Amino acid sequence: MEIPLKQGERIDDLQYKGLRIIQNPKFFCFGIDAVLLANFTEVRRGDRVIDLGTGTAIIPILLAGRTMAAEIVGIDIQSDVLEMAGRSLLMNGLEDKVKLKQVDIRRVEEHLPRRAFDVVVTNPPYKRTGSGIVNPDEPKAISRHEVYCTIDGVIDAAAYLLKPGGRFYMVHRPERLAEIIYLMKQRDIEPKVLRMVHPSIYKKANIILISGTLGGRPFLKVQEPLYVYNLDGSYTDEINRIYHREDSHG
Amino acid sequence: MEIPLKQGERIDDLQYKGLRIIQNPKFFCFGIDAVLLANFTEVRRGDRVIDLGTGTAIIPILLAGRTMAAEIVGIDIQSDVLEMAGRSLLMNGLEDKVKLKQVDIRRVEEHLPRRAFDVVVTNPPYKRTGSGIVNPDEPKAISRHEVYCTIDGVIDAAAYLLKPGGRFYMVHRPERLAEIIYLMKQRDIEPKVLRMVHPSIYKKANIILISGTLGGRPFLKVQEPLYVYNLDGSYTDEINRIYHREDSHG
Repeated sequence: MEIPLKQGERIDDLQYKGLRIIQNPKFFCFGIDAVLLANFTEVRRGDRVIDLGTGTAIIPILLAGRTMAAEIVGIDIQSDVLEMAGRSLLMNGLEDKVKLKQVDIRRVEEHLPRRAFDVVVTNPPYKRTGSGIVNPDEPKAISRHEVYCTIDGVIDAAAYLLKPGGRFYMVHRPERLAEIIYLMKQRDIEPKVLRMVHPSIYKKANIILISGTLGGRPFLKVQEPLYVYNLDGSYTDEINRIYHREDSHG
Repeated sequence: MEIPLKQGERIDDLQYKGLRIIQNPKFFCFGIDAVLLANFTEVRRGDRVIDLGTGTAIIPILLAGRTMAAEIVGIDIQSDVLEMAGRSLLMNGLEDKVKLKQVDIRRVEEHLPRRAFDVVVTNPPYKRTGSGIVNPDEPKAISRHEVYCTIDGVIDAAAYLLKPGGRFYMVHRPERLAEIIYLMKQRDIEPKVLRMVHPSIYKKANIILISGTLGGRPFLKVQEPLYVYNLDGSYTDEINRIYHREDSHG
């Protein structure tokens, strides 16, 4: 199907099962964080999944490609980004499997049923609102800063949306880990798996991947670190596998 | 000075400034955790420091060797271990700098002043009490299992003992990290630095080092991982430095 592009938009090949995505540099373009989060997220056959702050729908598209989810819902507050994401779904033939809705994360109760999802996934804005923002209504600011979407907000929404025993998956920055764990436990989403992502073996972590289970019992598994680069600057084998590039040994 | 040993006791050389310690295999003998914790703990000149569950006094002895603390207090519930630790202090000439007290961590208010310490450090028992314990009054069980000393207990005690802005340092197991962070934040000890210790670069963390500040602002620094072994099985340079062994390149 021929999908019309708007001015400034481009089509990026996801190098996986022929999936493609429409992006516009005017909006936030997805990064390694989204790819790592989709890879970290465990979706079982028949699961109902929701992505909070879906943006370009990169996470629903990747999850649709690699899992047997029954349904994937993506919500976002920004209507123009969702319109573009909707065309990406059509381009990939995913319009029946992935549903997009314009919903403010702070008001999920008005739009979505309680305890309806097996999996909640989110790659929220990382930065506290503050002096760094020139215009809080600019689309990139909304995607990067906690203008409409805070850690509290996504965790509250997840606690509302998840079935008992349902799983929450988030990517964020290490400096927010204590807040994240505290809020998850407050909302009875017990942290279960933590993975630190380091640029290379002697560097501080700059990304965290965390999952939790609604009503789970306390026991956190800290996985082996994920290193992005080898010391020679090439991608590690694990990153190549996650990106479905050639294995450097293969 | 000639210090008498009791049956079963031995003297171990700490390979650092001539410091030595008396240990008895009947009690819990210190491990790498205590050495890493002492190395992780930042003590400034003139600080008042307290070690909760001090056992052999390994942490006060190491901190006395490498810092300019004004005073280091070690408390423990076990009188026979404290008696042995007291002889280690005499052997090292540290009896004026380090004070030992028999105190139940659950009752620090009855024995110690509020807000009197700049630094609280603790290497508490790691294991939940449960099916694993044969005899809860056996000294090793008290040192290994949460018989008298739980995470709640040490964090409550730390919140009572620390001055505003005072620092808390703990070593523990990764699977308890979520509980630790939650309880620290509940008691207003904001987590500030987290370091994961991995046996080697592709292994899961098996030790965590965490610090927090009473009344601190939220911002957690996740440090570069600490690896204990190189892939060839030798100690890493960092471990050699921490143990004051020869640098393998030096």
